[in-house]
Amino acid sequence: MQIAVVGAGALGLFYGALLQRSGEDVHFLLRRDYNAISSQGLKVFSTFGDFSLPKVHAYRAPQEIGTVDLVLVGLKTFANSSYEELIGPLVGEHTQILTLQNGLGNEEALAMLFKEERIIGGVAFLCANRGVSGEVHHMGPSRIVLGELKQCDRSRLDRLTAMFTRAGVECRATDDLRRNRWEKLVWNIPFNGLCALLLQPVTSLLAQPATRSLVREIMVEVISAANAQQLSKPISNAFVDSMMEFTDRMGEYRPSMQIDREEGRQLEITAIFKIPLEYGQRQGVRMPRIEMLSTLLEQAVG
Amino acid sequence: MQIAVVGAGALGLFYGALLQRSGEDVHFLLRRDYNAISSQGLKVFSTFGDFSLPKVHAYRAPQEIGTVDLVLVGLKTFANSSYEELIGPLVGEHTQILTLQNGLGNEEALAMLFKEERIIGGVAFLCANRGVSGEVHHMGPSRIVLGELKQCDRSRLDRLTAMFTRAGVECRATDDLRRNRWEKLVWNIPFNGLCALLLQPVTSLLAQPATRSLVREIMVEVISAANAQQLSKPISNAFVDSMMEFTDRMGEYRPSMQIDREEGRQLEITAIFKIPLEYGQRQGVRMPRIEMLSTLLEQAVG
Repeated sequence: MQIAVVGAGALGLFYGALLQRSGEDVHFLLRRDYNAISSQGLKVFSTFGDFSLPKVHAYRAPQEIGTVDLVLVGLKTFANSSYEELIGPLVGEHTQILTLQNGLGNEEALAMLFKEERIIGGVAFLCANRGVSGEVHHMGPSRIVLGELKQCDRSRLDRLTAMFTRAGVECRATDDLRRNRWEKLVWNIPFNGLCALLLQPVTSLLAQPATRSLVREIMVEVISAANAQQLSKPISNAFVDSMMEFTDRMGEYRPSMQIDREEGRQLEITAIFKIPLEYGQRQGVRMPRIEMLSTLLEQAVG
Repeated sequence: MQIAVVGAGALGLFYGALLQRSGEDVHFLLRRDYNAISSQGLKVFSTFGDFSLPKVHAYRAPQEIGTVDLVLVGLKTFANSSYEELIGPLVGEHTQILTLQNGLGNEEALAMLFKEERIIGGVAFLCANRGVSGEVHHMGPSRIVLGELKQCDRSRLDRLTAMFTRAGVECRATDDLRRNRWEKLVWNIPFNGLCALLLQPVTSLLAQPATRSLVREIMVEVISAANAQQLSKPISNAFVDSMMEFTDRMGEYRPSMQIDREEGRQLEITAIFKIPLEYGQRQGVRMPRIEMLSTLLEQAVG
């Protein structure tokens, strides 16, 4: 399958590299890493085993790539205003667009620009960071749950699932993408938010009873908003326990939003906080701690 | 009146200086500023007019002072475990102890060590910071509301009120000290907490609609806890407006807790957050935003 990776941060580089290794025809749209990757290829340091791709198709502009079968979108959500410019030239008659971005609202924003039927969402559970140019570090799981924005052809989900599985990624399809997006927010909202605000890794939050309670209370707020969205089935409060256990096993992990703040980048506040808050509010669900966290983050980064 | 000032930070130095200037016999127990003040005296830079006290009674130990008529306590509340050591030697048969400290629980803690009848609380509305050793800067009001812990002799409140008034301090007595303490918390909890967490002055919080709303929501939480404490009359929600207007007139003010954090000192989290939260909880009042702010502050300073 001919694949273009748009937004080649840790997530785009990691999945793109796995797909290329398994035989897919992958093309990377790059900015920061263009020089390093086009001359020396891409190195992946992974808990699943390190590997190198000495030759990588690297580009600076989407026009150089042309139309593809699949666009894999890994952009930071604050760059979503570049969708048209970066993705438009890649889209032909049968092109599918898979966004693996964080938070809510990405599939809907893509559907505004391209056909709703093209849009597939993927919820990625991935611990990965970029290292120096041309390197990506993968520390944890890499699981992806795929779902269509508008349910029209479940068989294409099966084909994509098979492709990711061949590449070594634990992948499954879902009929309720929104539920999976909200499930991921149960983790992302407290940990990305608090770690970015305090500039402390997850381990520091997990080490204190008071911050553990706060994390759990925030998770319960997310779940109450999620369950007001007419999901196929509600998220149970027991999900909080499984997320805490999952995080207790993670070690000294710094969530992407903490790294973004530490490195002076913009934060994904709209996709991870503002849009979920709005979805909650529309259903009359207040999330006082999440509102406060969102406000504090925005104020902290000015 | 023979007065000992214990805890000569900005507050203790400022009120002590005014009292000495008006003719009271003031003795300062000093640590950081001892050398500067005992040799060169004390300089006050105040919006009410600057003045100097070339000669100041300065001491390093309370035993050197001996018993006095009035102990004025301006200690940071995290030093309350030093009450016995610092105040004990100053207390004779008729000594009164006036605490002008922040937050809740100080009168009660003093009453555990000394006689309940000695204890007077004062709620100070003061904008003042210490400068270099031997200097204090006063930028705003200096108002004090005085009340007895156990109502036994209202006339002594009148005498203290008259004394502060002679010294140039707007001062009045109250029959409901607790209500005044809670009123001050309506300001202290949001502004001390948020400014210390974000390391931003009050003006930065007032400049954004989202942080203004957060401040107001926190104030409403304080008021709901206050009004569950059987006060003589409830604090109305209109008090929020008057506190916002008061703060809008303050300019680029950094609350004491922000300065404490910036200068690496301990924060008054117990007196300003933990004890009020506990008083609220005892009456079944949850304060989610204040709990969260307290947790974040503790986590931020480690």
